[in-house]
Amino acid sequence: MTRTTAAAREPLPLQAQYDLLRRYVEVRTQTLKLAEPLSPEDQMVQSMPEASPTKWHLAHTTWFFETFILAPHVRDYVPFDASYKFLFNSYYKQLGRHPDRAIRSVFSRPELYEILRYRNHVDNCMQKMFEGEAPADILQMLELGLNHEQQHQELIVTDIKHAFWTNPLRPNYQPAQIKAFDSLIVPLSWIAFEEDVHEVGHDGYSFAFDNELPRHRTYIKSFRLASRLVTNAEYLEFMDDGGYMRPEFWLSDAWDHINANGWTAPLYWEHEDDAWYVFTSRGRLPLNPNEPVCHVSFYEADAYARWAGARLPTEFEWEVAASTVKIRGNLLENEAFHPCPAHADTNLQQIFGDVWEWTASPYVAYPGYRPPAGPVGEYNGKFMCNQMVLRGGSCVTPASHLRATYRNFFPAQARWQFSGIRLADDNI
Amino acid sequence: MTRTTAAAREPLPLQAQYDLLRRYVEVRTQTLKLAEPLSPEDQMVQSMPEASPTKWHLAHTTWFFETFILAPHVRDYVPFDASYKFLFNSYYKQLGRHPDRAIRSVFSRPELYEILRYRNHVDNCMQKMFEGEAPADILQMLELGLNHEQQHQELIVTDIKHAFWTNPLRPNYQPAQIKAFDSLIVPLSWIAFEEDVHEVGHDGYSFAFDNELPRHRTYIKSFRLASRLVTNAEYLEFMDDGGYMRPEFWLSDAWDHINANGWTAPLYWEHEDDAWYVFTSRGRLPLNPNEPVCHVSFYEADAYARWAGARLPTEFEWEVAASTVKIRGNLLENEAFHPCPAHADTNLQQIFGDVWEWTASPYVAYPGYRPPAGPVGEYNGKFMCNQMVLRGGSCVTPASHLRATYRNFFPAQARWQFSGIRLADDNI
Amino acid sequence: MTRTTAAAREPLPLQAQYDLLRRYVEVRTQTLKLAEPLSPEDQMVQSMPEASPTKWHLAHTTWFFETFILAPHVRDYVPFDASYKFLFNSYYKQLGRHPDRAIRSVFSRPELYEILRYRNHVDNCMQKMFEGEAPADILQMLELGLNHEQQHQELIVTDIKHAFWTNPLRPNYQPAQIKAFDSLIVPLSWIAFEEDVHEVGHDGYSFAFDNELPRHRTYIKSFRLASRLVTNAEYLEFMDDGGYMRPEFWLSDAWDHINANGWTAPLYWEHEDDAWYVFTSRGRLPLNPNEPVCHVSFYEADAYARWAGARLPTEFEWEVAASTVKIRGNLLENEAFHPCPAHADTNLQQIFGDVWEWTASPYVAYPGYRPPAGPVGEYNGKFMCNQMVLRGGSCVTPASHLRATYRNFFPAQARWQFSGIRLADDNI
Amino acid sequence: MTRTTAAAREPLPLQAQYDLLRRYVEVRTQTLKLAEPLSPEDQMVQSMPEASPTKWHLAHTTWFFETFILAPHVRDYVPFDASYKFLFNSYYKQLGRHPDRAIRSVFSRPELYEILRYRNHVDNCMQKMFEGEAPADILQMLELGLNHEQQHQELIVTDIKHAFWTNPLRPNYQPAQIKAFDSLIVPLSWIAFEEDVHEVGHDGYSFAFDNELPRHRTYIKSFRLASRLVTNAEYLEFMDDGGYMRPEFWLSDAWDHINANGWTAPLYWEHEDDAWYVFTSRGRLPLNPNEPVCHVSFYEADAYARWAGARLPTEFEWEVAASTVKIRGNLLENEAFHPCPAHADTNLQQIFGDVWEWTASPYVAYPGYRPPAGPVGEYNGKFMCNQMVLRGGSCVTPASHLRATYRNFFPAQARWQFSGIRLADDNI
Repeated sequence: MTRTTAAAREPLPLQAQYDLLRRYVEVRTQTLKLAEPLSPEDQMVQSMPEASPTKWHLAHTTWFFETFILAPHVRDYVPFDASYKFLFNSYYKQLGRHPDRAIRSVFSRPELYEILRYRNHVDNCMQKMFEGEAPADILQMLELGLNHEQQHQELIVTDIKHAFWTNPLRPNYQPAQIKAFDSLIVPLSWIAFEEDVHEVGHDGYSFAFDNELPRHRTYIKSFRLASRLVTNAEYLEFMDDGGYMRPEFWLSDAWDHINANGWTAPLYWEHEDDAWYVFTSRGRLPLNPNEPVCHVSFYEADAYARWAGARLPTEFEWEVAASTVKIRGNLLENEAFHPCPAHADTNLQQIFGDVWEWTASPYVAYPGYRPPAGPVGEYNGKFMCNQMVLRGGSCVTPASHLRATYRNFFPAQARWQFSGIRLADDNI
Repeated sequence: MTRTTAAAREPLPLQAQYDLLRRYVEVRTQTLKLAEPLSPEDQMVQSMPEASPTKWHLAHTTWFFETFILAPHVRDYVPFDASYKFLFNSYYKQLGRHPDRAIRSVFSRPELYEILRYRNHVDNCMQKMFEGEAPADILQMLELGLNHEQQHQELIVTDIKHAFWTNPLRPNYQPAQIKAFDSLIVPLSWIAFEEDVHEVGHDGYSFAFDNELPRHRTYIKSFRLASRLVTNAEYLEFMDDGGYMRPEFWLSDAWDHINANGWTAPLYWEHEDDAWYVFTSRGRLPLNPNEPVCHVSFYEADAYARWAGARLPTEFEWEVAASTVKIRGNLLENEAFHPCPAHADTNLQQIFGDVWEWTASPYVAYPGYRPPAGPVGEYNGKFMCNQMVLRGGSCVTPASHLRATYRNFFPAQARWQFSGIRLADDNI
Repeated sequence: MTRTTAAAREPLPLQAQYDLLRRYVEVRTQTLKLAEPLSPEDQMVQSMPEASPTKWHLAHTTWFFETFILAPHVRDYVPFDASYKFLFNSYYKQLGRHPDRAIRSVFSRPELYEILRYRNHVDNCMQKMFEGEAPADILQMLELGLNHEQQHQELIVTDIKHAFWTNPLRPNYQPAQIKAFDSLIVPLSWIAFEEDVHEVGHDGYSFAFDNELPRHRTYIKSFRLASRLVTNAEYLEFMDDGGYMRPEFWLSDAWDHINANGWTAPLYWEHEDDAWYVFTSRGRLPLNPNEPVCHVSFYEADAYARWAGARLPTEFEWEVAASTVKIRGNLLENEAFHPCPAHADTNLQQIFGDVWEWTASPYVAYPGYRPPAGPVGEYNGKFMCNQMVLRGGSCVTPASHLRATYRNFFPAQARWQFSGIRLADDNI
Repeated sequence: MTRTTAAAREPLPLQAQYDLLRRYVEVRTQTLKLAEPLSPEDQMVQSMPEASPTKWHLAHTTWFFETFILAPHVRDYVPFDASYKFLFNSYYKQLGRHPDRAIRSVFSRPELYEILRYRNHVDNCMQKMFEGEAPADILQMLELGLNHEQQHQELIVTDIKHAFWTNPLRPNYQPAQIKAFDSLIVPLSWIAFEEDVHEVGHDGYSFAFDNELPRHRTYIKSFRLASRLVTNAEYLEFMDDGGYMRPEFWLSDAWDHINANGWTAPLYWEHEDDAWYVFTSRGRLPLNPNEPVCHVSFYEADAYARWAGARLPTEFEWEVAASTVKIRGNLLENEAFHPCPAHADTNLQQIFGDVWEWTASPYVAYPGYRPPAGPVGEYNGKFMCNQMVLRGGSCVTPASHLRATYRNFFPAQARWQFSGIRLADDNI
């Protein structure tokens, strides 16, 4: 959520109110569209504790609007179901107890039909709120709710991919489709950036999460950023060079982790008859060497970079570079749900979309950061420990959700997200 | 399965064939009836690795007939779906790999509708087989399949109880119903049995599982058996006497287990406002002091017995006693799905039904026991380690499934089954 | 401990008193002799929670006499150190709290010298008690204490073997010694026993543990027992036949266990340059094909028997056979601390000594069994769950400690004891 | 290790050689002095996998000189024992395999006496090397070896404290000593620092670890640093205010961790009869309210800071402040081995010594950081993940080992180190 600007406290102009409502409807509709190919049974699956059932995503995003907007701001608001306050609380301790994350797969009740009614109920109440005198001071919370829902849109696609991969039948989320491989890819080139004191973080004029604030100055040495993402072909070279068996490339935690878990390739990769395949939303496909490598952990990204004689960029190096390009790319609206090869171009590309790019930066607070008061303060701040920042969005991130200052974060071993690698190095 | 008797190899008379078909239809229909109150979503839930989703039970019991009868015995049999051979194999290693038990909850596909079609397909093929020349030598396997399905009927009710209890909403499996408590219960009396060499195990004239064979002689000292099951009120006395806090009553493993898991009462018991409640198929109810205590582990049954100055019966003491009474009681067909108080009677009662009775006997092979050849040999024999025998069936066991020689078995710490306590002592 | 016989309550004759004292001195001295090759540092090692440091064994056995004899029976007895009551309590809950078994390796204090002084103090007090009027009613407890100490003598050798094997330097406990292999071994023959009602369990005229009581009648079908133990050569045939890779030989728990732990051979076996070696108290030696296979779990013993078309004997079959032979064999006093090949003989041999023989019998109470009152009742009874009975002693069992009715017990997966295999089958 | 300076490649002047030798002798002697109060048995104890036995520290520090100096640089060097190369390798994968850290407690052999001979052997060889023509290019490695040994000096005291605390007898490492509490403590004051681009990291003129390099510029906003450390009395206020029970103060990982482990106070604190006690190297003492709180994790330090309305300093804020004061304080040479109350002074104090100060900075590479080539490159770089930086040394850090740029690092949950809290805030 943004720093409260003076403007936000003024009465809300009609056009703004209308725009917001339209955006609300768009976002809420997009979520349902993503769930559409999935049966009530599909929407029950939780294939690991870190992932959630689709139905839970549908309910929890609705709970967010009910809990943080309707309940506190609408006079005499009657909750759809009193038990939901507890049931669909993810982790907000200041709102009281919440179910253990690992048991979301037992929520056969409320059934999907009931959750759809719940969405309807909350949508109606939200709409009425707009039709009446929408309290201007809830604008930020509304923006937060919409961005929150967009994050869960990404998770719906990400989690169902893992769910379907865990099912031995390996169902498709999207219709199967065979495409010929692009035969060429342009060699990686390096874009140089000069040493300087830069301003980073969000400027506060539009929506941003609290963790992008405050905008502040930071000193950055000159550096170079790779023009495009690391490809499957390049990652295979690392593997063929014994990458997963040579401790000199790996952080200590990483080495222990890949050995304890028997990792020898990215998630969703399978080797058969001397060829590599990947599981995708369209089923298993032959590995396209020109596509960006995807579903690697920070551990693997960092080891690859060291093998390649380079390093991962810091989040601020990335941000400085990203602020020079437009927000467009292979995003959720593309409905590819899979990264695409780079263009034949030596300029900076694939910054937004395709895969989240692991940075070398642990996820910490910006200087002067303060989480908002109350339970919503638990949204981002309390996770600032033992996680790494990822930047740039992926092929399952909504376009309107992204910006150059956006900070995603996951533990170093997570790899069920659409996460990949862009190299950097010191410009010397 | 029974020892092969000479009779079984003769051609099958028409009446017998008809009777079998009728029984097949009855059993298969009963299973569906138990699943009927459950939505496709309910039938997805697996609340712990030891329990299975209802849908999986529906599929696996069907798989059993397909795998052990149709595939080997019906010429040109075309499996409903080639992937099911792997997918619904529970643990038969000789049939090849099988999915890890813990991931049955991710099987959103095949959807419930598909599983019902699978049942239909197999039922039709089975029926056709009867209409033609039913091969007499598959009779035993058919009986095994039906008894196998009855075991899963019990598990359907047992597992969904755990699933619904895990759901914070605590849904009912059956309609709620409040009953007044019976005000009286007859004090426990003791039935004496004389020292002797007894024959135990199944006599082989009707169906029995391989683990009930061979019938053999065993020497039993004189003993006494309690006329009825231990009640909730009696178990509460143990608890109120510090039962769960006094190591002198507990086996060493038991003491470690109750402390590591924080057990202070049977499963499904809850204490609120100075009163005890139990979760049942009809929702949470006040604890009826006169009902048999249920959902206790062997550890708790054994500790209770020691506290009471008695002991658990051996499985053969129990069998000798049980062979003197008729098979009737509070069984699945009652549709109570919950144990009932004893009658005002000092004779041996509650032997069949209500709750499985933990015995003092580890589950081992009878002298001369041989598992059948082939994969079906894995049915019972390979579990003869680290399990205790339970006897007598419960309120969720089908009546036609039981007999005095029947041996159920679970690990000492299991308590999500309907399991309870009958006391014994040395007659001295 | 024995059932209290009338004789035990009479005043103790001088000769008996003298004999007991002599035996006390012998046992206590033997313990020290076993610890002698070990430095104070060696005596600190606890290589896994199930094993204990030598120093702890020295202290705990002393604690036993102090706690169960001196403290309750000697007027004004002053404990050597008040903290030892807690510190060296192994698992007697009725004596109050005790340290977690897994932290015995942190007991650098009291130092070894102090423990030797402790032994001295207790020995002196015990001796004085004998010189005065030794209370006749503590005889049983004294016998128990001596037998308890003998059990720990066996554990000292067993645990230090594991400790030294865990140390990458692989030190020797005894001086190295190379012996040529015996070139011949007599084929296994079968000894037949007739069906009958037998008396089993201890007759109560000499010392026995409570778990060997009461003597009782049991019905045993005719059976055959192998004349000797299974050899390394025979076990290698099982391994070479894919024994560890074929699920049909294994109990379900066993299969899971060997796969989870990567077991492919007995403990202490190592394969190098196409040959097998075993770690022994004299260091690593080439595997002698004629020696009894040792350091196998019940899981492996049971799988081997199934592969061999035989089975393990029940503990009563074993006892009936063992009561026909004398107690002699390769025992602790031999100081081989390693099993020996069988003699060229087709009679029943290797019954006592060499290796503990896994039986098919879970460890349960005999009919009418009552543990003694008080904390000493925790000695045996509370472990009667999830353990299997072993019979016959091993090459590290003191000769005076054994008898045909003796019951040892360990969990099915334990294999750091000197445990092996004798086959049985149904005599048909 | 430092960046190679031109000077280091020149021939080594005699005085420098002499100084180095003197320093070598001093450091090696100090290590032995710390081990002196400990028996061979004490030096065996490893009370948790993260801690190591004293004997292991003695051996491993010697191994470091043998492996990185003698073996590669002394012609015809004969290792003291060929097996030590493997045995005392801690984690250098490029040197081959190494024992699992958790089994260091089984190393009864080599015995302590042997390790002392090992130290002697290596010391003699080192001395000879100095007497001859000491190769100038090993100076850095020598400095590294000495600093490495000093780190292990700190660990010896830290680990034995934990070992003795785990022993139920709670032995003292130093003689007991009762001191009256200082009655007064000066209220915390705040020292302000102006916004600027600062140079941080080591300047390369004397020894530093690779992780302190390269010196680089960083932008720091104006901030304030507390004049002294947080005291026990202040921490008790946090506890009395329900600190450990209020999720709003805790990071998400922290909240899970304190609940899973039942933490309600710092390590080594014990509550008895309404008073708090702490375990120290001199045994259990009443908690001195004026001493700095010690043995808290990053989780607790961070939660305390949030409760106090402040925050932890970043490592660069701390370094900028520390570069204004001299390196003196309550350090190892004091032999207090326990933090002391602050002076009656409002200036910046307790910067060096007393307790390591948790910073808000995750442990990452400085811009342009390159680990040295070869196995020694594993010294620091591979741990740059999931750890937090601590600054300033503690009461068990040698004085000559510290500097303002020194970076220590531990996981957020570690608290057996002497670690405490200094507050910071934004200067606004």
